[in-house]
Amino acid sequence: MVSESFKNELQEKYQIKFNNEQLLEQALTHSSYSNEHQGCKNYEKLEFLGDAVLELAISDYLYRHFPNMNEGELTRMRSNIVRTEGFSQFATECGFSREVKLGKGEEKSGSRTRHTLLEDVFEAFNGALFLDQGMPAVQHFLHLTVYPLIAEGDFDSSRDYKTELQEKLQVNGAIDIQYKVIDSDEAQPRFTVQLIVAGENISQGIGRSKKAAEQVAASVALKNI
Amino acid sequence: MVSESFKNELQEKYQIKFNNEQLLEQALTHSSYSNEHQGCKNYEKLEFLGDAVLELAISDYLYRHFPNMNEGELTRMRSNIVRTEGFSQFATECGFSREVKLGKGEEKSGSRTRHTLLEDVFEAFNGALFLDQGMPAVQHFLHLTVYPLIAEGDFDSSRDYKTELQEKLQVNGAIDIQYKVIDSDEAQPRFTVQLIVAGENISQGIGRSKKAAEQVAASVALKNI
Repeated sequence: MVSESFKNELQEKYQIKFNNEQLLEQALTHSSYSNEHQGCKNYEKLEFLGDAVLELAISDYLYRHFPNMNEGELTRMRSNIVRTEGFSQFATECGFSREVKLGKGEEKSGSRTRHTLLEDVFEAFNGALFLDQGMPAVQHFLHLTVYPLIAEGDFDSSRDYKTELQEKLQVNGAIDIQYKVIDSDEAQPRFTVQLIVAGENISQGIGRSKKAAEQVAASVALKNI
Repeated sequence: MVSESFKNELQEKYQIKFNNEQLLEQALTHSSYSNEHQGCKNYEKLEFLGDAVLELAISDYLYRHFPNMNEGELTRMRSNIVRTEGFSQFATECGFSREVKLGKGEEKSGSRTRHTLLEDVFEAFNGALFLDQGMPAVQHFLHLTVYPLIAEGDFDSSRDYKTELQEKLQVNGAIDIQYKVIDSDEAQPRFTVQLIVAGENISQGIGRSKKAAEQVAASVALKNI
C-alpha cells in the first residue's frame, strides 16, 4: 500500500487526492514486484497512456507560451523535454522514488534510483492522474513541477551551438569548419570529436552520439571566442 | 477562403462548426501558399499540436477498448495507426485534399494527393479542432473516422506474419528462412521480396517498404501451410 505520509504530501504539495487509489497504487508498482505478487497490477499500461498525456500537455503548453517559435523549434524543444532525464528528477522530488514497489532483485541492483525507471514512473503517474481526474488535473500538477523549468529555459533547444558558432565565424565570409571523429566506442557509446577551423585544431567534445559530441566541441569553442 | 460547401459538409457529416474559422483556414493552408501570400498563416504549428492530440486520443481509445492487450501490443498498435498512410485516406474522405491551399509549384507537382502532405493536413485539422473546441470534439470526430477502423482490426499489429511463420516452421528445430529483395523501385517506392525457406522459393510479397513486402510474403506463405 502507498504510505499515508506520501498521500498527505501529494495533497499538500500538489492538491492531488486520487478518487481511485488503486490507480495511484498501480502507477507505483514495477513489473518485478507484480511478478512476485499475484493479482497485483504494474504500471506499464499506465506508462503507455502517460507518455501520450505528457506529450499533449507539454505540446499544448509550448504552443500557447512560445507563440514566436516555429514548428521546428517547438518540436525540438518538446523532444528535449520528453526525451531527457528531466522526468526522473521530478519523480524523485515528488517522492515517487521512495514509494515505488520493486521486486527483490531490482531492489538489490539499485533500480530505485535508476533514471529510466523513474522516468517511467513519472509517465505512469501522469497516466493514472489523467484516468482519475482528466487533463486539467495533469496540467495543474505540471504547473507545479515541469512547466516552471520550461519557462526558465531549461529545455531551450534553440541553443544550437554548431549553428551559433558557424554564424559567428562566418560573419566576415565563408570559413572552413570541420568536425572529425577522432575516437569512438560504439559499445559505450562514446564519441570524441575534434573541431577544426581553417585547418587549426580548436576544441574537442565528447558525447554519447557524434552529434552530441559536435555540440560540446562547438560550445567549448564558443566560450573561447 | 474555405468553401461554403465544405463547411456545410463538415457540419452535416461530422457535426463540426468552427467558432474560430481562421483556425480551419490555417489548418488547410500549406507553407507553399503562405509563402506566396503575405499575412497568411500555414498549418505547420497546428500540425505540431495535432500530432500530440491524435497520439493521446488514440492512446486513450486503445487503453479503454483493448483491456487485454499488454503495453507492448498497445504501443505497436498505436505506432501502426499514427505512422501509417491511414491518415491521408481520412484526409481525402473528409474533403481536406480538395480544400487545401497550395502554392503554384506544389500544385503543379501534384502535392495535393501526396500521402505525407495529406497526413500533415489531417494532423493540423485535429490540432485546430482541439484549440477551437477541446478534446471531446476531437474524439467525436475520430469516432466517425479513425476509431471504426481500429475496432475492425485494420491496424492490428499483433499479426506479425514473419514471426508467426518462423514459429510454425521452426517448431521441429532451426530452418533457414531468407527474405531477398528481387525488385525495387525507390522512387515509387515499391519493393518485391522473395521468401526462401531451406533453399526453396516459397512466396513473394510486394510493398511500399522492404519490411511491408516481407510481411506480405510471410502472410502468403502462412495461407499455404
